[in-house]
Amino acid sequence: MFEQIMAAAAYAADAGVPENADSLTLLLIEISVILVAAKGGGHIALKLGQPGILGELVAGVAMGALSRLVLPGQLHDLFVLSTGPESHLAILGELGILLLLFRVGLESSPRDLMGVGATSLFVAVGGVLLPLGMGYFVCNLLASDFPDIANKWQMHLFVGATMAATSVGVTASVLSEMKRLRSRESRIILGAAIIDDILGLLLLAIITGVIGGTQNGSEIRLIPIIVSVAVSASIFIVVGTLAGTWIARRYLRLLRRINGSGAYAAGLIAFCLLFSTAAELSGLAPIVGAFLAGLVIDDGVNSSTADVARDTDQIGRGERELAPVIAILAPIFFVLMGMQVRIDSILSLKMALFTAAITAVAIIGKFVVGFVVPGSLRSKAFVGAGMVPRGEVGLIFAAVGRTVGAIGEETFSALVFMVILTTLVAPPLLKYFGRDLETE
Amino acid sequence: MFEQIMAAAAYAADAGVPENADSLTLLLIEISVILVAAKGGGHIALKLGQPGILGELVAGVAMGALSRLVLPGQLHDLFVLSTGPESHLAILGELGILLLLFRVGLESSPRDLMGVGATSLFVAVGGVLLPLGMGYFVCNLLASDFPDIANKWQMHLFVGATMAATSVGVTASVLSEMKRLRSRESRIILGAAIIDDILGLLLLAIITGVIGGTQNGSEIRLIPIIVSVAVSASIFIVVGTLAGTWIARRYLRLLRRINGSGAYAAGLIAFCLLFSTAAELSGLAPIVGAFLAGLVIDDGVNSSTADVARDTDQIGRGERELAPVIAILAPIFFVLMGMQVRIDSILSLKMALFTAAITAVAIIGKFVVGFVVPGSLRSKAFVGAGMVPRGEVGLIFAAVGRTVGAIGEETFSALVFMVILTTLVAPPLLKYFGRDLETE
Repeated sequence: MFEQIMAAAAYAADAGVPENADSLTLLLIEISVILVAAKGGGHIALKLGQPGILGELVAGVAMGALSRLVLPGQLHDLFVLSTGPESHLAILGELGILLLLFRVGLESSPRDLMGVGATSLFVAVGGVLLPLGMGYFVCNLLASDFPDIANKWQMHLFVGATMAATSVGVTASVLSEMKRLRSRESRIILGAAIIDDILGLLLLAIITGVIGGTQNGSEIRLIPIIVSVAVSASIFIVVGTLAGTWIARRYLRLLRRINGSGAYAAGLIAFCLLFSTAAELSGLAPIVGAFLAGLVIDDGVNSSTADVARDTDQIGRGERELAPVIAILAPIFFVLMGMQVRIDSILSLKMALFTAAITAVAIIGKFVVGFVVPGSLRSKAFVGAGMVPRGEVGLIFAAVGRTVGAIGEETFSALVFMVILTTLVAPPLLKYFGRDLETE
Repeated sequence: MFEQIMAAAAYAADAGVPENADSLTLLLIEISVILVAAKGGGHIALKLGQPGILGELVAGVAMGALSRLVLPGQLHDLFVLSTGPESHLAILGELGILLLLFRVGLESSPRDLMGVGATSLFVAVGGVLLPLGMGYFVCNLLASDFPDIANKWQMHLFVGATMAATSVGVTASVLSEMKRLRSRESRIILGAAIIDDILGLLLLAIITGVIGGTQNGSEIRLIPIIVSVAVSASIFIVVGTLAGTWIARRYLRLLRRINGSGAYAAGLIAFCLLFSTAAELSGLAPIVGAFLAGLVIDDGVNSSTADVARDTDQIGRGERELAPVIAILAPIFFVLMGMQVRIDSILSLKMALFTAAITAVAIIGKFVVGFVVPGSLRSKAFVGAGMVPRGEVGLIFAAVGRTVGAIGEETFSALVFMVILTTLVAPPLLKYFGRDLETE
């Protein structure tokens, strides 16, 4: 605040105070434009009978394209920088997605998730192996003559791995919007997404370990990597859930006594963020921690026999207070995700074909695993559709692949495109298959 | 998100991906601790019959002191960096304070402010001249032998100027908490604070102009500086209010038709931030723009004859949705402000005396101008108390003074201390004098 004053003072006194005015000004404009675009896009999507999040993603795609077409070079660079990782905007979006997953956890029940645990495990494992294999195969078929990488099998492996990682954010957002979070199919999807995240983590550790080992010519030590990731993730989930439930019960009792506006929501947010941090320190994704935090709070309420009614009431108040915070922060995440799409990068026939092929494989590979779920065709298809979006996990796989030199610039763009297309295709599919699904 | 994965991948592949895990981890922990400290402090303050914001400020002071005592050097440096200007935390706090002022604007009416315009002007002008003069005098008396500056009168001038700038954020927060925003005294305070901001801006431009001119040995051109600041500020206020009301009326009509959760609140936030940006680009403080945005929206509602009821209802919904966002973001601002206090920097007798003297003068200088207000003694005292807090504007004056070399390190600490003490003293004073004040 008041950077303008400082800038003016610096100008007047010629004393070299850094000119910070641009940065805050730009941020305020960007937040405004993103909010207007997101809510406008969401409105149009809702009018067309689609989930709001689809509109937010498309609004992001449009903003990204427009910024490249309209903004002059220097301003565009500034725009890219101010929307990139670690920017203020990205942090706002990440807080939004953490709170979104936290709310999903609040609305889910650990008991219900356990009940479908075996099914979730099948869906998750199938949904990792199938796209991985199919991706490798497609690359062998179409990308063997790509000029941009030295080591073919590394590239094929990375493309496959990028196609393996489900992102739960988009699906959870749609399920929540459809008010269908407590259905059996949703529980299977959420459980599978958590397992998927751990599998994805293992896969990434393994592949980068293999590639790193190959590049350095040093011995590959796969077992220690796998064991350490698996052990620390398991410890976090078991200890976190047990200790978390114990703590949550006492924490809720304390929170109930705190006066002040927004104190309850603030207390819940603090709990969510600390849990996310613990997950991150255990080597898991922060969103997994946020989801578990929500589960644990919900469990803390239901298992404290005396005050269930009062706690449920308080949680309701906390959720009501959280809702607008999430409604404002999470769209920033989805718009930024949409902005990553670069249509111009896949305009050659070869790249278009490759992108279409890996996108088709990515969608089919996740969709068919839904058919291991017992039940009606519709509920199989619903679970399959819920596993389709790759979201930010896929983007991170692609980024790591590019960084370690396993995939080139063009392949990277094709992967980003695949990630976005799977994310775009999931909300309408979920809406379609979920429409006539019986609710229990 | 997923920096841990990227860090793990970078570690495994030894490919030099930047290790970002620390930054997000630290941020999440800091937000959690700040929220818990703020709401805990607020709770205790409310229990003691004080405004919640006092507890948030003191919590910040305690956190700052603790961080210096407990954290090892390297971690403390990281902590200072991550809570400094332009940090993610500072941005979150600034968004909070913008939205807070926006809500204050929503709850105020331009017509009511105009009605007390002359009184506000008197209070503002008196409240700038009196502390400026008294500050200069105290410096002449106590600080003439300070070793840290070359040019005595420059230092005296800057100390005086730092004491001149009222900060409206703290007062507005207390008034809002007391549900007394629409009272005559509150309107006088808010009007005076806006005028004060413009006067402070002029003063800073003039003083840095004079000092810069003296240092460079070049000719001092005061008139152009004064004219340009005054003209651009006036244009913004006049054009912004007129055009803003016109736009607000149409914008509200559009917003009413938008579907989607949080769409109304998001629309209001976008309007607020764009107005804040416009204020900044006109050379005014962004918070003045945020306040005007609220005024203009409120006016847009009341002047569109057909849909007043429906709009008022919508604004009510928007305000309800904004409330938790503000309740979570604004405390970050106040805690960060409290963290700026360094008790150890004024532990010598001479500095303690100097700090006490400028603090006393700062409080008295603003408090007595309340007595130009017609009415009961209590309402005079209430207005006076409302003008006391210097808040972030004072901090920025002090920072500019240090940057241009007008004040030294010790004097800077004393000024920061003065700013914080005025901010700490105002909430209980307002509460005390406001208790028996008649409401109209």
